[in-house]
Amino acid sequence: MILEGIVTTLGADGSVNIAPMGPRVDAAMRHIVLRPFQTSTTYRNLKRLGEGVLHVTDDVELLARAAIGRIETLPALTAAEGVSGQRLVDTCRWYSFRVGRIDDRDERTSIEADVVATGRVRDFFGFNRAKHAVVEGAILATRVHLIPAQEIAAEFDRLRILIEKTGGEQEHRAFDLLSHYVTDHGRGA
Amino acid sequence: MILEGIVTTLGADGSVNIAPMGPRVDAAMRHIVLRPFQTSTTYRNLKRLGEGVLHVTDDVELLARAAIGRIETLPALTAAEGVSGQRLVDTCRWYSFRVGRIDDRDERTSIEADVVATGRVRDFFGFNRAKHAVVEGAILATRVHLIPAQEIAAEFDRLRILIEKTGGEQEHRAFDLLSHYVTDHGRGA
Repeated sequence: MILEGIVTTLGADGSVNIAPMGPRVDAAMRHIVLRPFQTSTTYRNLKRLGEGVLHVTDDVELLARAAIGRIETLPALTAAEGVSGQRLVDTCRWYSFRVGRIDDRDERTSIEADVVATGRVRDFFGFNRAKHAVVEGAILATRVHLIPAQEIAAEFDRLRILIEKTGGEQEHRAFDLLSHYVTDHGRGA
Repeated sequence: MILEGIVTTLGADGSVNIAPMGPRVDAAMRHIVLRPFQTSTTYRNLKRLGEGVLHVTDDVELLARAAIGRIETLPALTAAEGVSGQRLVDTCRWYSFRVGRIDDRDERTSIEADVVATGRVRDFFGFNRAKHAVVEGAILATRVHLIPAQEIAAEFDRLRILIEKTGGEQEHRAFDLLSHYVTDHGRGA
């Protein structure tokens, strides 16, 4: 199963990187396989330090911001258990992991890791079509260089219906942010 | 916020009805507004008994089966706390509720209810695009009478990509079930 979550890693200068990530996970959440690109900060940090934290969260605003690199102020963080690093304070669950094997022969790498500590903070909301529309929008936003602007705009029009029908304030804010981002990119291209 | 969950209610004969339902919920999950159609079993049961249980679950196979009325064998149930009724044994969280006000002037009713007891069983998986594709497919399947078969087939083709990319066995089974259902309906129409 692919889990769309958020991964925090530590840079050489001690800075915390927050990135959306869709690792393959097993049912018990003991073993994960991440597939960051070699160009990503997550890859570089994991290659160097070999540790990080995967978060299961329903905070689509943070996820959207992380996807387009617009985290103006860092969310609250706390020392991670079991690994060197910081984890999100506001999350549903967290999984500290240690890298076992890295295959970086391709530009898209494959990083196998074992979960070494885990914790629960709060409940995941459950199925909400608007939250999921933001997830899909965030994924599209990371692909603006690959997908024609018109196609992305059409997809955003479809997704917006779900935001309006089933979303709360957070989902509206997150979707507007992504929407402006892809529109700006479309204009610039 | 709209939560896509599962509601169990009790019939006059003591039978348990399991239905997908998208109530409006508040952040604290204390007050919910259900909007079942007058033609539905959930409406009739709530009108008669005034009690039920809302479940937050990531079990998309049960959700799909409930959406198209194909629950051949009932899932494991146990006595609900706080209300007359039965709740799902396998669920993430459950919320027993008591109906306050019913507005059934329209065919689509509005039923306000207060949560009187709640419990947690297991964690919700988190964001998974395949699980969500099943939710969207299940919603489409309940609308085969309203949406042209060709449109539904095109939408299922789009959703299937997410199942194949990110789903596990349960998501594949659930989506296949829905897929056959809408195809059969399309042929019959």
